[in-house]
Amino acid sequence: MIDNDLLMKIDKDSEEPIYRQLIRHIKGQIESGALGPGVRLPASRDLAQLLNISRISVVNAYAELRATGYLSARAGRGTFVNGAIDSGTPLLSTNGMRHNGNGQADKLQVYAPNDRSLRELMRVACKPGVINFSQGAPPLEFFPVHHLREAINFTLDRDGSKALAYEAPEGYYPLRVAVQQYVSALGIRCSAEQVLITGGTQQALDLVMQTVLSEGDILVTESPTYLGVIDLARTRRQQILSVPIDEDGIRLDILENYLLDHPIRMIYVMPNFQNPTGTITPLHRRRQLLALAHHYSVPVLEDGVYQELRFEGEALPPLKALDEYGIVLHASGFTKNLMPGMRIGYVIANNAYYERLVRVKAIADISSPGLNQRAIHLLLERGVLARQLERNNRELRRRRDVALVAAKRHLPKGTTWNIPSGGLYLWIKLPEDGPSAAELYISAVEAGVAYAIGSVFYPDGEGNYHLRMNFGAHKPQDIEEGFRRLGNAWRDLAQDYAGMEKAHLL
Amino acid sequence: MIDNDLLMKIDKDSEEPIYRQLIRHIKGQIESGALGPGVRLPASRDLAQLLNISRISVVNAYAELRATGYLSARAGRGTFVNGAIDSGTPLLSTNGMRHNGNGQADKLQVYAPNDRSLRELMRVACKPGVINFSQGAPPLEFFPVHHLREAINFTLDRDGSKALAYEAPEGYYPLRVAVQQYVSALGIRCSAEQVLITGGTQQALDLVMQTVLSEGDILVTESPTYLGVIDLARTRRQQILSVPIDEDGIRLDILENYLLDHPIRMIYVMPNFQNPTGTITPLHRRRQLLALAHHYSVPVLEDGVYQELRFEGEALPPLKALDEYGIVLHASGFTKNLMPGMRIGYVIANNAYYERLVRVKAIADISSPGLNQRAIHLLLERGVLARQLERNNRELRRRRDVALVAAKRHLPKGTTWNIPSGGLYLWIKLPEDGPSAAELYISAVEAGVAYAIGSVFYPDGEGNYHLRMNFGAHKPQDIEEGFRRLGNAWRDLAQDYAGMEKAHLL
Repeated sequence: MIDNDLLMKIDKDSEEPIYRQLIRHIKGQIESGALGPGVRLPASRDLAQLLNISRISVVNAYAELRATGYLSARAGRGTFVNGAIDSGTPLLSTNGMRHNGNGQADKLQVYAPNDRSLRELMRVACKPGVINFSQGAPPLEFFPVHHLREAINFTLDRDGSKALAYEAPEGYYPLRVAVQQYVSALGIRCSAEQVLITGGTQQALDLVMQTVLSEGDILVTESPTYLGVIDLARTRRQQILSVPIDEDGIRLDILENYLLDHPIRMIYVMPNFQNPTGTITPLHRRRQLLALAHHYSVPVLEDGVYQELRFEGEALPPLKALDEYGIVLHASGFTKNLMPGMRIGYVIANNAYYERLVRVKAIADISSPGLNQRAIHLLLERGVLARQLERNNRELRRRRDVALVAAKRHLPKGTTWNIPSGGLYLWIKLPEDGPSAAELYISAVEAGVAYAIGSVFYPDGEGNYHLRMNFGAHKPQDIEEGFRRLGNAWRDLAQDYAGMEKAHLL
Repeated sequence: MIDNDLLMKIDKDSEEPIYRQLIRHIKGQIESGALGPGVRLPASRDLAQLLNISRISVVNAYAELRATGYLSARAGRGTFVNGAIDSGTPLLSTNGMRHNGNGQADKLQVYAPNDRSLRELMRVACKPGVINFSQGAPPLEFFPVHHLREAINFTLDRDGSKALAYEAPEGYYPLRVAVQQYVSALGIRCSAEQVLITGGTQQALDLVMQTVLSEGDILVTESPTYLGVIDLARTRRQQILSVPIDEDGIRLDILENYLLDHPIRMIYVMPNFQNPTGTITPLHRRRQLLALAHHYSVPVLEDGVYQELRFEGEALPPLKALDEYGIVLHASGFTKNLMPGMRIGYVIANNAYYERLVRVKAIADISSPGLNQRAIHLLLERGVLARQLERNNRELRRRRDVALVAAKRHLPKGTTWNIPSGGLYLWIKLPEDGPSAAELYISAVEAGVAYAIGSVFYPDGEGNYHLRMNFGAHKPQDIEEGFRRLGNAWRDLAQDYAGMEKAHLL
């Protein structure tokens, strides 16, 4: 009976994610009365099998239907249709759009990336007791709160209300000078007039992409790459061509083929401690990459957000430091190494791009908050950042070592990982004869550990057995415990999967 | 000799602004040696006449060439070619683009609005001694600096490093609740889940436009309208259809014709104290506008940034308070009434838009700074904003009265202006038998007063005789003095123009 009401045609080719189709169908059945109050829904695994879809989609759909009041979960008993649904205000805008002859509803679909259900799934990690390695944030205990407080009070004493007025779109000039001096230590020669202050590194990337790319344009990224840039390209309706990386970074042979065959507008790379893999592009490949980009006249967006989080090895110059052609736009910030919540980053760009970048910044939000800029300026000037980094990196190295030992001790045989010399992440590949990272996810969270599912970092949806663990964000004992839980969750599930499902899943 | 070297073909139909063509030409002549060091350039008015272009373009080109070291001005003597030009790093990116077969150079032209030269012209106002009425900022002396300092210290004591971590893209939840309560006093009923915290009102507008509009889509605005939205549409390659306003706001007859004839995607309006005109849309027209928008299924972006700056008359409900259909996206912030430099604003949107707005926010800059959000939250909770507004509005009314008296006393016969009951601006129309606002600008700045040139607020370049004066930003004695200088500058120039040029200019 239930099963009949839940038998629906899932369109796997639809742009509507599967879990959304499911939500729509179940809602409809509840609203029509076909599924009455109190009715128990099948377990997610059973429904998934019934419909031949992934369990994640069902878990996700149930979660949303619970959140919106259609279903409720009773511990140990299952998922039930709620009583009278108070649907609240009807979703009039949805109606508005349905009636809209202008195709608005279609456009929304552009915003439905394939991995949406994975992303939403990853939100379940945010519950108490779960050791969450999924995020990109540096550890809270590193933040120099006292120094910041002192800097803000000093700024307000010194500048009064001026610190709270509109700032120039380019940024607070003394901060631009300080950034110019700061990056000169990394080898980047520029003038303060080429520094644009942004709302964190994310806005730095966004402004560059808006400045260089239009809808439909092609961006090359590494594969895997930073999630935020995949999202940016999708949301701005740009195309991504992804180039696999090897142990030395982006593969130039494949890149050149793409450059030959496609009108590529920009190349996005992270040569230092690449997110998520931790890869370092060596000097010779950096030079080759620049020569190639120059030859095809394609600008390069360099993401330097992890570059200072180096706890081993020699510093390599950023691409911008090697940029004889003026084709590199360098985006970075004080996010990962100081305080993400201040939202202060920067772009360094040559004159040809700079003016337009400023214009895009001005329409985006007029300027970044002046008080935040002034406080960060003081922290830079007072050497707080330098001292901070030293402490950070010592501790990151310690945590990395703990993570490496814990991975070896607890993860299943056949698992592999990188040995990062900087950054926050361990990039792990599970054995392919067990559950994928997405399949493992629910069990892992139930066991009290969460991670970033690797395939979200692949523009083309590969990386099913990969996962990313932010060891930097946790204290050593939690790292050890987290890896232990992860290993156990994998073994439990692998056993489970050994039977009938294994054949289906592999 | 000089004149020959400066005789160039100006292409008035080019997308390259005239002053840019001029800069290019003069630079070329200097670099080639045709214009040697020490050579005196013709007065801007003479060169303008020679080339049959506006004097503004010449002034602007000279200013930029001075800023970049090609020319220098010697007081009372004129403008001269400098000695050895140190052109610094060659503009390599420009070369990169010139060589780029992908048409990048073309794209940059999209960013060359007609009024660019006016905008750049308005920058000359930022010099000492000039009473500058051109800006959109509230007066510095209104900012509750001490309260803010106290709130920040309290926040850092209470939350420690949490206040400096990434915030949720939707915003700091207690602030979302506080905003929901705050706008409920304006008549807007919503849940905290419909409140998205943004980087000021500008980002609120940007996120909505990104959420609803694609490249090429048509946005309806009032005419004149807020400059920042014209810029947004241009930069995002959207089209604007502008509807004239009358004394009751946007003209619905013209709007309906547009709705009939064009696939309009969104309507942007500012029903309270419209920028720049100060117009208030009465209740009946608000309702009619909503009915019309609903009928044609077009969402309405309501800009409420001035709504609380009311010093006379009854409060009218924002469109969002009347929005039975869920088609209004309400953008506002704590910019004009509290502290622009904190960059905290908000969007209130129904569920159908909300999810996508959050996604666009997350890619734009992940989240607004948590510390700023927490501090503003405390200021709201402690009633600082309410008290602040009361003081503000009393003082704004006083300054408005001073401005009205000063306008009457000093502005030339035939000048007209609105009598605003809220907001920051006097919207002035000069008599059409004298210089336009753009023509008057240089003389005004020389006389020590600056204003916003009215035509920049018209998407279609009308409004030549209009100007906008921010009376709110100045102390009464400066308002009086500023209007005196403005009247004198007009009279001086009008006399000047009485001869030969008048025929040319009118």
